[in-house]
Amino acid sequence: MRAGNLALSNTMPLDTGLDVRLACRTGALDGVTAGLAPGYVQGNLAILPRDWADEFLRFCQANPKPCPVLGVSDAGDPAIPALGADLDIRTDLPRYRVWRDGVLVDEPRDIGALWRDDLVSFVLGCSFSFEEALLQADVPLRHHALGCNVAMYRTSIQTQRAGRFHGPLVVSMRPMKPADAIRAVQITTRLPSVHGAPVHLGYPAAIGISDLAKPDYGDAVPVEAGELPVFWACGVTPQAAIAAARPPFAITHAPGSMLATDLKNAQLAV
Amino acid sequence: MRAGNLALSNTMPLDTGLDVRLACRTGALDGVTAGLAPGYVQGNLAILPRDWADEFLRFCQANPKPCPVLGVSDAGDPAIPALGADLDIRTDLPRYRVWRDGVLVDEPRDIGALWRDDLVSFVLGCSFSFEEALLQADVPLRHHALGCNVAMYRTSIQTQRAGRFHGPLVVSMRPMKPADAIRAVQITTRLPSVHGAPVHLGYPAAIGISDLAKPDYGDAVPVEAGELPVFWACGVTPQAAIAAARPPFAITHAPGSMLATDLKNAQLAV
Repeated sequence: MRAGNLALSNTMPLDTGLDVRLACRTGALDGVTAGLAPGYVQGNLAILPRDWADEFLRFCQANPKPCPVLGVSDAGDPAIPALGADLDIRTDLPRYRVWRDGVLVDEPRDIGALWRDDLVSFVLGCSFSFEEALLQADVPLRHHALGCNVAMYRTSIQTQRAGRFHGPLVVSMRPMKPADAIRAVQITTRLPSVHGAPVHLGYPAAIGISDLAKPDYGDAVPVEAGELPVFWACGVTPQAAIAAARPPFAITHAPGSMLATDLKNAQLAV
Repeated sequence: MRAGNLALSNTMPLDTGLDVRLACRTGALDGVTAGLAPGYVQGNLAILPRDWADEFLRFCQANPKPCPVLGVSDAGDPAIPALGADLDIRTDLPRYRVWRDGVLVDEPRDIGALWRDDLVSFVLGCSFSFEEALLQADVPLRHHALGCNVAMYRTSIQTQRAGRFHGPLVVSMRPMKPADAIRAVQITTRLPSVHGAPVHLGYPAAIGISDLAKPDYGDAVPVEAGELPVFWACGVTPQAAIAAARPPFAITHAPGSMLATDLKNAQLAV
């Protein structure tokens, strides 16, 4: 997950959200952003045409655990000042995904050539922030120890439909000892803007997961004896809802290539 | 658990902590206090001679989840003004237990005849307060629905020893659906003065409980399919520590016959 460093010149610092954005903007950074700008909030990106944006915002409002909104742009404006003074959403992520009619058509390094006056950008909270809080509290995360991606599953829980946006709740799973699971509930409860408390623990079948060893996204992460699988609402949920709604045009971040903001994780706790 | 009402005259209100204390003081109330003075904090009682009290307070300080201290008296003083302006600890509980050298010797209605100038009273938070908070949040409690006592177990977790006081952590168990277990962690985390968050969930064997159907105290409460057993530190822990320490003289409340205070449950959340 530290592959993002590989494409960097050794002299460029990546200590802040601004550092990461500038590295993306200049083309120095191509890869994932996990572990970069420690302490800074990173976000999922979804860009939609104005005539889909209002419905998507209602979808997020109705499903705040998978879709916690950190910031929304004005239509056509590539800036989101609340998330970064100089932020330019067209250049400041390492890599993007372009969707037409719900189908992935390209993965460009910037989206300047695709920009339109009717595009609205949504930045949603991501699990990197609560994972940092868990690690700081000495709650171990196996996918970090294994150096792999978190395991994610489509569940039998349906999101609240809003207009054309609908679909299953997607969850991420982290195996934990019971005392750590309790601690993790306490810690993530205070972080509603980055998915908040778990939605489920134990019994995968109760939420429609038949085999933990076969995640729908990410990597399989083993649950050891005496551990419980703990499930959080996941930022893949809105991507699945966009894929189901099939808007004629949409842009998201590429997996793991997040927007680094000027917000600090330490500011998020309620 | 509503048996306490049976001994009452029909005309005496039991709406407040003071009502319950006065009913005890006048002899009108003999029984358990569950369900009386709704909204008011009830507490476990432990009375020890001064030369044992400092060690017991250290034991409580070292084990705040099973032994959350709500109030401590001056030696020889039957008042605890912080818990009730007029409170007289010698008369204001329905029934007491008297212990000599760790052995139960009597269960009197008041302890005026036993009072000594060296006795220190400790009032500890009890689960009635967090159960009220859970019920108000629509988290169902099966032992309430069944009209029986909560199931309690001695665990393999040892308390922190303080002088002569030591022994196993005793826990209470409430079966819950996973989403309710998460909600219960959130709610009880804010109530550290009445046992706080659970200490364990799932896997009884991990804390030395071999058979949930055979509790060490209270009644067996079935865990249904799809539910997790959720375990909280229990106020029986200090009673077990007193029994293990065998002080020459001690007084506690009789099971279920708590001290009703003037504190409100709604004031407890941190």
